[in-house]
Amino acid sequence: MRNVRIKVAYDGKPFYGWQRQAGFATVQEALETALKDLIGEHLTVFGSGRTDTGVHALGQVASFHVDTPLPDHRLLHALNAHLPRSVVVTALESCEEGFHAQASALGKRYLYLVLTTRFRPPFGHDHHHWVSDALDLGAMRRAAGHLVGEHDFSALASAGSSRRSSVRRVRQLRIAARRDRLAMLVTGNGFLYNMVRTVAGTLIEVGRGRISADSIPDILRSGDRSMAGPTAPASGLYLLRVFYGESCFWNQTHGPRGRPGVFV
Amino acid sequence: MRNVRIKVAYDGKPFYGWQRQAGFATVQEALETALKDLIGEHLTVFGSGRTDTGVHALGQVASFHVDTPLPDHRLLHALNAHLPRSVVVTALESCEEGFHAQASALGKRYLYLVLTTRFRPPFGHDHHHWVSDALDLGAMRRAAGHLVGEHDFSALASAGSSRRSSVRRVRQLRIAARRDRLAMLVTGNGFLYNMVRTVAGTLIEVGRGRISADSIPDILRSGDRSMAGPTAPASGLYLLRVFYGESCFWNQTHGPRGRPGVFV
Repeated sequence: MRNVRIKVAYDGKPFYGWQRQAGFATVQEALETALKDLIGEHLTVFGSGRTDTGVHALGQVASFHVDTPLPDHRLLHALNAHLPRSVVVTALESCEEGFHAQASALGKRYLYLVLTTRFRPPFGHDHHHWVSDALDLGAMRRAAGHLVGEHDFSALASAGSSRRSSVRRVRQLRIAARRDRLAMLVTGNGFLYNMVRTVAGTLIEVGRGRISADSIPDILRSGDRSMAGPTAPASGLYLLRVFYGESCFWNQTHGPRGRPGVFV
Repeated sequence: MRNVRIKVAYDGKPFYGWQRQAGFATVQEALETALKDLIGEHLTVFGSGRTDTGVHALGQVASFHVDTPLPDHRLLHALNAHLPRSVVVTALESCEEGFHAQASALGKRYLYLVLTTRFRPPFGHDHHHWVSDALDLGAMRRAAGHLVGEHDFSALASAGSSRRSSVRRVRQLRIAARRDRLAMLVTGNGFLYNMVRTVAGTLIEVGRGRISADSIPDILRSGDRSMAGPTAPASGLYLLRVFYGESCFWNQTHGPRGRPGVFV
């Protein structure tokens, strides 16, 4: 039995999220089905966390135990040959017994992709969020600055989370814009339910001038979800990267040809 | 009766090309249906030329005669409100009686978009062409240089065209690469059937080292289709722009927020 970790990119559109659910196509189930086809037995694949219906990933990480004579690079290619075209494993390695994709994770980075063309774009509807208004980047960056650090994010997350604490640390919140695309890159040690989408929805309202950048500290303090902006649609959200300990190859940059990204 | 010209962006994926065909969804039919819903009568919309099944457009141009009290900007927005989300009109203006989208066209520019990620990308399959090999940009640019100018392009087009002459002038053939995307931009006074896709397929073979850049003049002279590379798939092809006389606003740059482009 080997403990194996993989890095996975997927299109969220055809799936009801990451987590296995009887009767629905999910990414976890696609991976487990591919492994079953390949190895002949059912294995459980543990992800670093769930992603919701319609949310994409370029660098999801998962781990599983497997008993196979196939070396890592052969297992990687065989697995891809059995996966549907909307899921691709971009890295695979045997790792220490103690590694668990979820329990060992130290943080995550998400991308929220906004298209700001004046006209409704004719394609890519499931892979970005289109905003027809011009957005004030300066105001959005000022608001983003208020969100960085350790805060209680209750006002910027959906209710119903069973977590004990709603305090999270946002390490970085970068807003990059080029031509008619705007990317919000959020890095943190963990995120509440719908937190990245609510942060994105709130920053967009700031960009539109409907929420003042300087009201962010008040919104955070209030703990009142109704003061923040709407939950931005799943279509714009990408799980980019999961962070682990420093020695781990998952933190290395793979160079341009190693990245499965279309947008980033 | 006004003569009206429009600039249209569309996703080629859901359509059987531009041209109306009984029983098939086409872009021309989508525009004519939207106009019928709006104006109450059938109008014929003339495009600058056909695009094939699966080929996209960011700047297709079309013209039609219409009798309506709606001013141009109202007609533009009303038309978009009646179109399916995979077609969008990005500009509309009344123009001189003599303007005809096809007959008045002086040239066109196409984009062919290649993704060169090492791993099969999980999304966008219908909107690019994925090539897993590293491509030699220098060789591709050398080959492109041989294609610029006036040549008989029989060797780089599909048979069956009814055109009298197979001589065309390629004004510019630019190859731009950034990270894992490679764009071939081809501008010319006209193109034979499948010519842009064959040029793209041939340049990709040059990039892979399977066709020598310096054999391009021989391939052109041979007039032999079998010497060139394969016809690259429709998914990577975008009609970017149609050129008309200088006075025409269609040649102006609309600024970043005016462009409907996702990729360019």
